[in-house]
Amino acid sequence: MNVKDLLEQVKNGTIEIEEAEKHLRKQPYEEMGYAKLDSHREIRSGFPEVVYCSGKPDEFLASIYQKLYDENGEVFGTRASEHQYEIVKQVLPQVVYDPISHILKIEKEDKEHIGKIAICSAGTADIPVAEEAAQTAEFFGANVDRIYDVGVSGVHRLLAQLDTVQEANCVVAVAGMEGALASVVGGLVSNPVIAVPTSVGYGASMHGLSALLTMINSCANGIAVVNIDNGYGAGYMATQINRLAVK
Amino acid sequence: MNVKDLLEQVKNGTIEIEEAEKHLRKQPYEEMGYAKLDSHREIRSGFPEVVYCSGKPDEFLASIYQKLYDENGEVFGTRASEHQYEIVKQVLPQVVYDPISHILKIEKEDKEHIGKIAICSAGTADIPVAEEAAQTAEFFGANVDRIYDVGVSGVHRLLAQLDTVQEANCVVAVAGMEGALASVVGGLVSNPVIAVPTSVGYGASMHGLSALLTMINSCANGIAVVNIDNGYGAGYMATQINRLAVK
Amino acid sequence: MNVKDLLEQVKNGTIEIEEAEKHLRKQPYEEMGYAKLDSHREIRSGFPEVVYCSGKPDEFLASIYQKLYDENGEVFGTRASEHQYEIVKQVLPQVVYDPISHILKIEKEDKEHIGKIAICSAGTADIPVAEEAAQTAEFFGANVDRIYDVGVSGVHRLLAQLDTVQEANCVVAVAGMEGALASVVGGLVSNPVIAVPTSVGYGASMHGLSALLTMINSCANGIAVVNIDNGYGAGYMATQINRLAVK
Amino acid sequence: MNVKDLLEQVKNGTIEIEEAEKHLRKQPYEEMGYAKLDSHREIRSGFPEVVYCSGKPDEFLASIYQKLYDENGEVFGTRASEHQYEIVKQVLPQVVYDPISHILKIEKEDKEHIGKIAICSAGTADIPVAEEAAQTAEFFGANVDRIYDVGVSGVHRLLAQLDTVQEANCVVAVAGMEGALASVVGGLVSNPVIAVPTSVGYGASMHGLSALLTMINSCANGIAVVNIDNGYGAGYMATQINRLAVK
Amino acid sequence: MNVKDLLEQVKNGTIEIEEAEKHLRKQPYEEMGYAKLDSHREIRSGFPEVVYCSGKPDEFLASIYQKLYDENGEVFGTRASEHQYEIVKQVLPQVVYDPISHILKIEKEDKEHIGKIAICSAGTADIPVAEEAAQTAEFFGANVDRIYDVGVSGVHRLLAQLDTVQEANCVVAVAGMEGALASVVGGLVSNPVIAVPTSVGYGASMHGLSALLTMINSCANGIAVVNIDNGYGAGYMATQINRLAVK
Amino acid sequence: MNVKDLLEQVKNGTIEIEEAEKHLRKQPYEEMGYAKLDSHREIRSGFPEVVYCSGKPDEFLASIYQKLYDENGEVFGTRASEHQYEIVKQVLPQVVYDPISHILKIEKEDKEHIGKIAICSAGTADIPVAEEAAQTAEFFGANVDRIYDVGVSGVHRLLAQLDTVQEANCVVAVAGMEGALASVVGGLVSNPVIAVPTSVGYGASMHGLSALLTMINSCANGIAVVNIDNGYGAGYMATQINRLAVK
Amino acid sequence: MNVKDLLEQVKNGTIEIEEAEKHLRKQPYEEMGYAKLDSHREIRSGFPEVVYCSGKPDEFLASIYQKLYDENGEVFGTRASEHQYEIVKQVLPQVVYDPISHILKIEKEDKEHIGKIAICSAGTADIPVAEEAAQTAEFFGANVDRIYDVGVSGVHRLLAQLDTVQEANCVVAVAGMEGALASVVGGLVSNPVIAVPTSVGYGASMHGLSALLTMINSCANGIAVVNIDNGYGAGYMATQINRLAVK
Amino acid sequence: MNVKDLLEQVKNGTIEIEEAEKHLRKQPYEEMGYAKLDSHREIRSGFPEVVYCSGKPDEFLASIYQKLYDENGEVFGTRASEHQYEIVKQVLPQVVYDPISHILKIEKEDKEHIGKIAICSAGTADIPVAEEAAQTAEFFGANVDRIYDVGVSGVHRLLAQLDTVQEANCVVAVAGMEGALASVVGGLVSNPVIAVPTSVGYGASMHGLSALLTMINSCANGIAVVNIDNGYGAGYMATQINRLAVK
Repeated sequence: MNVKDLLEQVKNGTIEIEEAEKHLRKQPYEEMGYAKLDSHREIRSGFPEVVYCSGKPDEFLASIYQKLYDENGEVFGTRASEHQYEIVKQVLPQVVYDPISHILKIEKEDKEHIGKIAICSAGTADIPVAEEAAQTAEFFGANVDRIYDVGVSGVHRLLAQLDTVQEANCVVAVAGMEGALASVVGGLVSNPVIAVPTSVGYGASMHGLSALLTMINSCANGIAVVNIDNGYGAGYMATQINRLAVK
Repeated sequence: MNVKDLLEQVKNGTIEIEEAEKHLRKQPYEEMGYAKLDSHREIRSGFPEVVYCSGKPDEFLASIYQKLYDENGEVFGTRASEHQYEIVKQVLPQVVYDPISHILKIEKEDKEHIGKIAICSAGTADIPVAEEAAQTAEFFGANVDRIYDVGVSGVHRLLAQLDTVQEANCVVAVAGMEGALASVVGGLVSNPVIAVPTSVGYGASMHGLSALLTMINSCANGIAVVNIDNGYGAGYMATQINRLAVK
Repeated sequence: MNVKDLLEQVKNGTIEIEEAEKHLRKQPYEEMGYAKLDSHREIRSGFPEVVYCSGKPDEFLASIYQKLYDENGEVFGTRASEHQYEIVKQVLPQVVYDPISHILKIEKEDKEHIGKIAICSAGTADIPVAEEAAQTAEFFGANVDRIYDVGVSGVHRLLAQLDTVQEANCVVAVAGMEGALASVVGGLVSNPVIAVPTSVGYGASMHGLSALLTMINSCANGIAVVNIDNGYGAGYMATQINRLAVK
Repeated sequence: MNVKDLLEQVKNGTIEIEEAEKHLRKQPYEEMGYAKLDSHREIRSGFPEVVYCSGKPDEFLASIYQKLYDENGEVFGTRASEHQYEIVKQVLPQVVYDPISHILKIEKEDKEHIGKIAICSAGTADIPVAEEAAQTAEFFGANVDRIYDVGVSGVHRLLAQLDTVQEANCVVAVAGMEGALASVVGGLVSNPVIAVPTSVGYGASMHGLSALLTMINSCANGIAVVNIDNGYGAGYMATQINRLAVK
Repeated sequence: MNVKDLLEQVKNGTIEIEEAEKHLRKQPYEEMGYAKLDSHREIRSGFPEVVYCSGKPDEFLASIYQKLYDENGEVFGTRASEHQYEIVKQVLPQVVYDPISHILKIEKEDKEHIGKIAICSAGTADIPVAEEAAQTAEFFGANVDRIYDVGVSGVHRLLAQLDTVQEANCVVAVAGMEGALASVVGGLVSNPVIAVPTSVGYGASMHGLSALLTMINSCANGIAVVNIDNGYGAGYMATQINRLAVK
Repeated sequence: MNVKDLLEQVKNGTIEIEEAEKHLRKQPYEEMGYAKLDSHREIRSGFPEVVYCSGKPDEFLASIYQKLYDENGEVFGTRASEHQYEIVKQVLPQVVYDPISHILKIEKEDKEHIGKIAICSAGTADIPVAEEAAQTAEFFGANVDRIYDVGVSGVHRLLAQLDTVQEANCVVAVAGMEGALASVVGGLVSNPVIAVPTSVGYGASMHGLSALLTMINSCANGIAVVNIDNGYGAGYMATQINRLAVK
Repeated sequence: MNVKDLLEQVKNGTIEIEEAEKHLRKQPYEEMGYAKLDSHREIRSGFPEVVYCSGKPDEFLASIYQKLYDENGEVFGTRASEHQYEIVKQVLPQVVYDPISHILKIEKEDKEHIGKIAICSAGTADIPVAEEAAQTAEFFGANVDRIYDVGVSGVHRLLAQLDTVQEANCVVAVAGMEGALASVVGGLVSNPVIAVPTSVGYGASMHGLSALLTMINSCANGIAVVNIDNGYGAGYMATQINRLAVK
Repeated sequence: MNVKDLLEQVKNGTIEIEEAEKHLRKQPYEEMGYAKLDSHREIRSGFPEVVYCSGKPDEFLASIYQKLYDENGEVFGTRASEHQYEIVKQVLPQVVYDPISHILKIEKEDKEHIGKIAICSAGTADIPVAEEAAQTAEFFGANVDRIYDVGVSGVHRLLAQLDTVQEANCVVAVAGMEGALASVVGGLVSNPVIAVPTSVGYGASMHGLSALLTMINSCANGIAVVNIDNGYGAGYMATQINRLAVK
């Protein structure tokens, strides 16, 4: 029995107030909380559901893509393999796979893009993560400027693109190895910087932990950090900030 | 406006069903969820609130003790310092301080104790943590058997008390250094073992992390682990299990 | 010579008391201790021997399954591979393999189940570990309620099943990534929570160590932790607690 | 010789073009870059310089406060000790010290505050860090809602304040021990969450590292993390986002 | 009832065989195991009980020293403070304290020393740990050669004492910082080397963990490692080996 | 518009001084900084660009080699696989691959070599890294003495080559496992030592982290450390020092 | 020129004393040190060279085996693969491979074995490491007692073999997971215990680091630890101790 | 008997050649090696002995300073406390103490300084370590340029001093927190960079370990790292390189 029906019965006197009250108190989460939050989520975020493909069994993946496509007319998945592309293509031939970012998507053509996010990467090996961030932000409707291969061992490369970086509502700084890019960027801009450590490196890079520590300890203000290789998370939060700025 | 009043208005027709529904949907947590969970907690757990004294400012501590004593006729605090004992004694002269376990309490005299919990400690230096567990369980109404200084470097000491250990509804195994006690106990009993690593040790004990790792990796079944030096947490969970067993 | 025979000889006078005493003192462990503990274990725990399949050579695995099946009429193994299923099926065609939980078993049909254990998992990727816990508890004779995909990033999903969680004698909380589920569950129930960190995640999850640390540091009472991915261990201890509660 | 003078000389012909070009090329950073970036920083950020008091020698601290007060009519310092308060009070009697947040400041009275930032803390022991964040954001001109003691072991406390949290342009989630608050908050709001791990806890909390790992591995979207106990950094970035939202 | 009495009763028929068997099975550890192992320990090891002074309450320390002195005519304690020396001196004025090794002892005068143990230390700062090892071995009856300040940054210093090192039945290598001494010593001798990492160092020495890792990973054969700063443990095991060699 | 044109306009009065100043201030990095630093790098270092082959896609690798060869008449790449050798050989048949060091290069024949660098390795398993260092230094124009298999477990092997080590302008010490070689070498020479930890080892070597810690904590003076397995970095820095010494 | 020739020349007056002195001082290591230590090593240790097969290129392995066999009439290698066995068998058909311990050897038939070493293993999965230790000690001439599957979760299994363990001159304790076996064994015997952590386990066992920490922190005396999975190292040191005991 | 005497006896026939040879072989290290290396060290390095004051007992410190001053006419000590200054001043009134760098020294007045070393520090809090490096290099005879407070969060500050940095024979980069300075410096200069992590920071800086990891993983070439806070070690190695460059 949903809330409306319950209230109708109260009005009609077919249920006692005490009984109705008990019912409402006993299951607030199921009947209301659940729906409320769910619809809240839909309404508030404007972020359609995204598929984390890695590890998804073949039999589920295709049907998830089909279902989301049917609902939204587009679908976006991260960390997809070449093999998963083949699987999904069988049911949705128009699906597009980017072997660099491992993004597997169908995107509406006439999507409007707003604001500006700058995505900086330290080295060419960091580009897969940077592209995951960039394409995530673009799918969610942001304009993105890509500023790649501007690691701090040649700081002039970043300085050469200072205006572009400074104009963005939010900067995503993607770097592996020692991860120093975030601090240098943070010192050059006035808007928030989201730092993404990557697992690029070897030896004492410890699969990205060193870069993560560098970024967390940054001496620059206005920097916060997401998980190693989490381009999607950075693109998501950058979109949130960009939307606030444009609103 | 509370739920009952709202429903009265629905019945009386002084509020539209749509309006009432909106109101209910909008604030399920404040009006209902909050109260429901709170009373649930009181009713279900039977665990009175406990004071974690460490770091509490002097000015707050005395009034917290006073308030809890007024409500419950007893009060229990962990990790209290000698200084805090002096502070509380000024307002509650009957308060009792145990410098070993650092427990500061007023306890009802005629408390009934049920079931049986065994608390084992590896060395004499682990006794403060073991006592925190033991006195916690006793305050919460369990019978406790103390089996101290039965570390695995002299395994006959533990075996000499096998019956006592095997009869308990739950065993708490407290050990620092290499923390091997939990595994040996786990192999000897049929009921659950709660393992408490302690910060006793030096060098590579890393303030209890080594003992924690030992216990988490235990090859024996029926062992789960709480935080380093968390005698209170072990005593609490042992009480939960003991109550289930006696019920 | 076993103890009974020895005592017969003492009674019959065919052995001197001193001689018998010496014999008993010299080999308490072999003749008695060994047997005592073994039979103790059988009697007290009611837990039949379980096979940890991972890494077992093919040639041993089939004969272990055969032997345990002959003894008990059922057999239960964890962490089995598809290949091991094929091996065992050759000698025991009725063996059943679950590719999700990697459990390989023959189970008696008319097994009675008692009490109630709730198994919560944070995400769908944690289900293999949750199922290992669930099926372990069921094999050992417990009723299990599965409450999956109730991670804290959408806390309403857990709240929607509050009654089920609160009614269980013991809750197993299975979560990877940041592992926050255990703390939220711990704050909602009155009975013990066994927390199982999983290796689900990437980057700074460090194969489950982060989730393990989260759970060990939980601010909620009544939580203890087992090793990463140790669904079996959690199911075992939950069964112990459930038995105590029903007894 | 500054750039303007140089150009005057070029215009007047008192310097050769080649000479002027060489001069400009040789010292771009000193003459121009330095000033440019400096003034850029002033103009763009609107963030006055802040004093990190911890470890500053007494002799410097008073003069830094005097100088910044003379320049801006207000001054803001973090991590100040009681002793440092005494030192600064001798030269600036109107300075105000908050022993909870350890903030030492003189603030203009008629400051306008814009937007809305919500600062949540898990426990009362996390309040010093939460206050550092809150007062930083307020000093920088943001409205702040404080939502303290809403840790996940009693999730209804947070849910009871859902509207306040959801209305903020940015949420700061401050938590020690297992640090699970950030994930729960992240699942409830649509705007960015800045997570601040604190060093509150003991044993395996490792002075905040465990909470940091929890937050970095969060399963919720829209969360990024700053250093342990870095309330200032969170307040700074929240202000950046709040400004973008209001602009 | 002891075993002999039990057997008498069996012989006399005053106890049933089944009853006697049950009794024997039920308590093999208490009646036999305990005594057996205890006397074994006394007889086999020849190591008198040693006092670990650190953390012992004043009230217990003096009485422990008194009791052990009364039993053995000598007493040996490690990690004693100056203050503890004063405490014990009040009851045993002949007690001797070494502020370098922090050993507090009364030693029989005419003790025989056998065999030869070499104790090498890398730097002068490692001498406290080296002395703990040396004096432990001497108290337990071994001859000790001290070879101090022979760190690998001046390998000629060690080579200059090659004969002494090579003649020992066991070498103890004590080193902090990078702990390389053990590997060099291990390559020069034919008898076992016990490596003792010390907490000497700073920065990345991590209080001895780096030296511990160095020694565990040694490329030389015949090296095993004890805990950081555990001079006593090294002296103990060196004594065991030296006794075997002399026997 | 470049700087010269701008200055011409200033001179001609076709641009206002204020306008010219603004232009210069606005883009110092793009127009000048970029070029300046770039040419600086070429001129100052004398180090041609080197290819880090690992992970480079096949399609890019061949063209990079072709381009660098065309520019410099030689090309040098590290961490190349057998497969990458085959790829590059198709376009540059004269390319040479060393399966030990994984270096893939075309080198000018009549290259002059100066000074002297000594490369020491602890074990034969460290030779791949040592060769990466050696061949890097040789490609960059240094004379190299190889002193391999001189680990500290047989210190005479190193001493036997003392003169060679002492004569070098810089020594590279390559070692895995416990990494003690660097300290011993550091104590024997007067010139700088560059220490290279390798991932050789097992267990607690933690893929080279233990050796890294050993080297960082070295008790010898004149030692600095590069990343695990970073033979190239050591060869590069040794070349820098060697050039300074010869200059 | 060797030392004897030099001295002949001094005697004959064909070289000046100053010249000879200079020569001797200049090259002590090459001419003397090298030879001295080398022959020392041969003479003193009685340990023939052993082959660490893992990672050895095929082309070298066979010739190393051939050479050592020619010199000693036997040859012993550890960590050999099935493939390496095939390689060596082609040149030395009598070579024997043990797929459990991965030892590849030719052993003299009439080798005398002395003394007694006990090798304990905690679980069946630790047997490969235990066998590496056992077969190493046997190859080096020791008698070995194998006591396998005596982990502490069933401590009666170890107690049942107490006499065997106590009679050995040295005990090797091999254990993965939590590694508690070493402490229990250490408390039962009077002779030295060499503890070998193994990489057996999962999750928080961290590939043997947890077991290593357990063993280093052991509360029992007379225990020292070798690297993870280093059965060879334990067998070597046990042989050293056993030889000293028998000598 | 020294070598000269021995050779005299050989010449005189008072000792047999075989006997002399044996003597030489038996003790090459004592008689020759020791002296040779010692004098070598004096001659080659030109580095007088330096006192590491921290932890030195008062009674030794003054006499060490007296002895070194008598030998060399100057004396240099690091990590001295105010108290130690008072102690040494009593015997050497001319001793000078720098409370910033904690250096305690008497330095010859007319010391010649050569070459050029640049010492960069990221923040003002890193200056104590930077000064230890600077004053060490100056004491050893190098010219030093101090470039302080040029952290990467304001990269223009470093660029403004580019010429000074580029002209140095060696650059020392001192930085705590995230330690990114080394990478930026490394990309700007052609000569070697010695990176010094400092313990400046809080939270996840882990007392300098994060900065150390940053520097070890640097993406720039020509960087090597010393221990945390090891200004002395960096100043020493920089002096070595500077000497080679000037020679």
